[in-house]
Amino acid sequence: PVNAERIAGDIEALAAITEPGHPWTRRAFSPLFLDGRAYIEARMKAAGLETRIDAAGNLIGRRTGRKPWLGTIMLGSHSDTVPDGGRFDGIAGVISALEVARALADQAIELDHDLEIVDFLAEEVSIFGVSCIGSRGMTGQLPEAWLSRVSDGRDLAEGIAEVGGRPGVLAQQKRPDIAGFLELHIEQGPVLEAGREDIGIVTAISGITRIEITVEGRADHAGTTPMDRRADALVAASQLVLDIRNAAAELARTPGHFAATVGEFRIEPNAANVVPSKVVLLIDGRAEIRADMDAFCRWLDGHVEKLATAYGVTIGTPNRVSDNQPTPGDAGLLSTLEAACERAGAKHRRMASGAGHDTAWIAKVAPAAMIFVPCREGRSHSADEWAENDDIALGAAVLFQAVREMDKA
Amino acid sequence: PVNAERIAGDIEALAAITEPGHPWTRRAFSPLFLDGRAYIEARMKAAGLETRIDAAGNLIGRRTGRKPWLGTIMLGSHSDTVPDGGRFDGIAGVISALEVARALADQAIELDHDLEIVDFLAEEVSIFGVSCIGSRGMTGQLPEAWLSRVSDGRDLAEGIAEVGGRPGVLAQQKRPDIAGFLELHIEQGPVLEAGREDIGIVTAISGITRIEITVEGRADHAGTTPMDRRADALVAASQLVLDIRNAAAELARTPGHFAATVGEFRIEPNAANVVPSKVVLLIDGRAEIRADMDAFCRWLDGHVEKLATAYGVTIGTPNRVSDNQPTPGDAGLLSTLEAACERAGAKHRRMASGAGHDTAWIAKVAPAAMIFVPCREGRSHSADEWAENDDIALGAAVLFQAVREMDKA
Ligand SMILES: NC(=O)NCCC(=O)O
Ligand SMILES: NC(=O)NCCC(=O)O
Repeated sequence: PVNAERIAGDIEALAAITEPGHPWTRRAFSPLFLDGRAYIEARMKAAGLETRIDAAGNLIGRRTGRKPWLGTIMLGSHSDTVPDGGRFDGIAGVISALEVARALADQAIELDHDLEIVDFLAEEVSIFGVSCIGSRGMTGQLPEAWLSRVSDGRDLAEGIAEVGGRPGVLAQQKRPDIAGFLELHIEQGPVLEAGREDIGIVTAISGITRIEITVEGRADHAGTTPMDRRADALVAASQLVLDIRNAAAELARTPGHFAATVGEFRIEPNAANVVPSKVVLLIDGRAEIRADMDAFCRWLDGHVEKLATAYGVTIGTPNRVSDNQPTPGDAGLLSTLEAACERAGAKHRRMASGAGHDTAWIAKVAPAAMIFVPCREGRSHSADEWAENDDIALGAAVLFQAVREMDKA
Repeated sequence: PVNAERIAGDIEALAAITEPGHPWTRRAFSPLFLDGRAYIEARMKAAGLETRIDAAGNLIGRRTGRKPWLGTIMLGSHSDTVPDGGRFDGIAGVISALEVARALADQAIELDHDLEIVDFLAEEVSIFGVSCIGSRGMTGQLPEAWLSRVSDGRDLAEGIAEVGGRPGVLAQQKRPDIAGFLELHIEQGPVLEAGREDIGIVTAISGITRIEITVEGRADHAGTTPMDRRADALVAASQLVLDIRNAAAELARTPGHFAATVGEFRIEPNAANVVPSKVVLLIDGRAEIRADMDAFCRWLDGHVEKLATAYGVTIGTPNRVSDNQPTPGDAGLLSTLEAACERAGAKHRRMASGAGHDTAWIAKVAPAAMIFVPCREGRSHSADEWAENDDIALGAAVLFQAVREMDKA
């Protein structure tokens, strides 16, 4: 029912709107981001959608239904990217959603519900250091303090205003009209490709917990301090990194997605001939099942005490700098998506999302779910990210079938 | 024979010349460094020394002897500091040397030899990333390529010229006139304090070998990439840090000082939700016995290959970015120093230096040796560094006795 070439053309056109030398970079709040949106808005208009920017700075294309009192079926994702990555991350979902609207128009199908196609503002961690601005903002979940986060000489409120939003009224935002929300996204992992499956029906979006740990040893002269008289923060932190990896690998072998990664790690004084005195590291933990994260944190709290004693260093209590619960997909929509896969002829499986998505925020106020399409070698947030257009088009067809089904409900 | 209060007063006065909030910082090539030197030069003049800056930017105070054809007895150390550390590191040696000249003047002792008191330029690793500029430069051992190392908008040649040196003639520098060189330095380790000894007579300055290792894994999404499908550069590098520590601890248990430290360590991309793709680390190795360093390097070359296989990452061949042989102290001077300790009533022991010193460069062209005085808990390169003034004064007395003995030879 959908037109694969039209999808490919749009994704290609957006890929061309990138920082030169940094494919494919279109950072939220940048002039290039606005160029990308101008393209998307023009395509929404060409598809007969009525466009607007909502209070949270989301670009929305709307098609009125026959019985608007039934509420809005919403489809969408985001068009911003991380630096140097994101030819498909977000874009595939925005363009697939748009393609559903076009396919409906092509086939002169009128829906009972209103339909909205959304390009959420700043899903990725942006220059303001936080993510999912648009989906949080649309649903009154943007912490007010974030509006005064400053970057590049302006605060987030000004950033939202610059893209056409109204930051002053964000606290009052509610979308009680959303009858159901669907997002298509590339998997950003290797599971579908490995299993030669077309579609992942996302049972839950893993909770994300960020934990900061500070290891403090003693700066000593690297030449003169005997090996057995050191309190080397890097040595202790290295043991911690290995232990975290092993604990996470063990939880990953039990049911439910689990991962933990030390992604940020810096040492002080970071000087060639000084025994490292301090390491600050940040753990990124993901759990489909909350009990796994609780178990991990309990283990970690006890383990750092043992390590501190064993290595003669001080390790502060692990500090949960952020902590989100897992978000299950709406059970009804999961069934709808399964049926839609069958109708579209897509080989599907249920699976968790290890990554965070706008869907998690919409799910707080409305039935929401998402589907994954395969991507090459699971690569994402990288210039190497790749997804086959036929896979995206098949995903768009699933969305199309699901929307028709949702409209009947 | 020496005046302990005069030593304390000078060390105190130099401690006051520090970056505010960063005791005790007087980085080479900074305005504060020149302030410190102005103080030292004034004190040299007050002691009746004739001052000059040599081609390598060393500050030298000279006292002419009765038989200058016998050559120069040289005493010295350095007045620059590492960031945030160095109340005594270097300074204790410069001021003790100066005190010897003052004590000779006080007692109206004329020497046959010329006597030079030297504040070597930039012994510590400076903003130009290399160490022992002054002692290498004075003796024609400064690699010419270093002169074009750039920092803060100028190159090292300009930096040397700024402090009064003549970088253009460095290649021709030779000091065939040095009859003997002595340096007093704080131990920067815990051995003398632990043994309640006054003086360490340094049998050898350990060779310093710096080895850079690059671990390359694969950047992947930290949320979505299963634990068993990662090539995490930080996990592999953490294992390497632990293995290096264990190998070094084993060599340290055999005769001869040995230490190895990973002091520099940085990861890429260093982003919370990205599996680390790269770690570059720098090992600082110290060996009193060259065979120990050879054994360590052989072990390391083989070990990184095994680790790379075990962790599914790439580890480049360890790159010896610098590699110096151990430098034995001059046998004659070691005996002279032992006799001087006896005369000064100092409890002494022979020991190796784990740290590099200007003495190692002077030793390439002249008889040279050094003595250590105790410092508290071995702390150095840190604001906590401390040495008792009486210990420094006793060291100065040993230098005084040694100079008198050297002058007779
Ligand atoms: N989908 C995605 O990459 N989101 C960014 C937040 C995260 O999961 O790390
Ligand atoms: N003595 C001293 O701290 N020298 C600096 C060079 C080194 O040994 O690391």
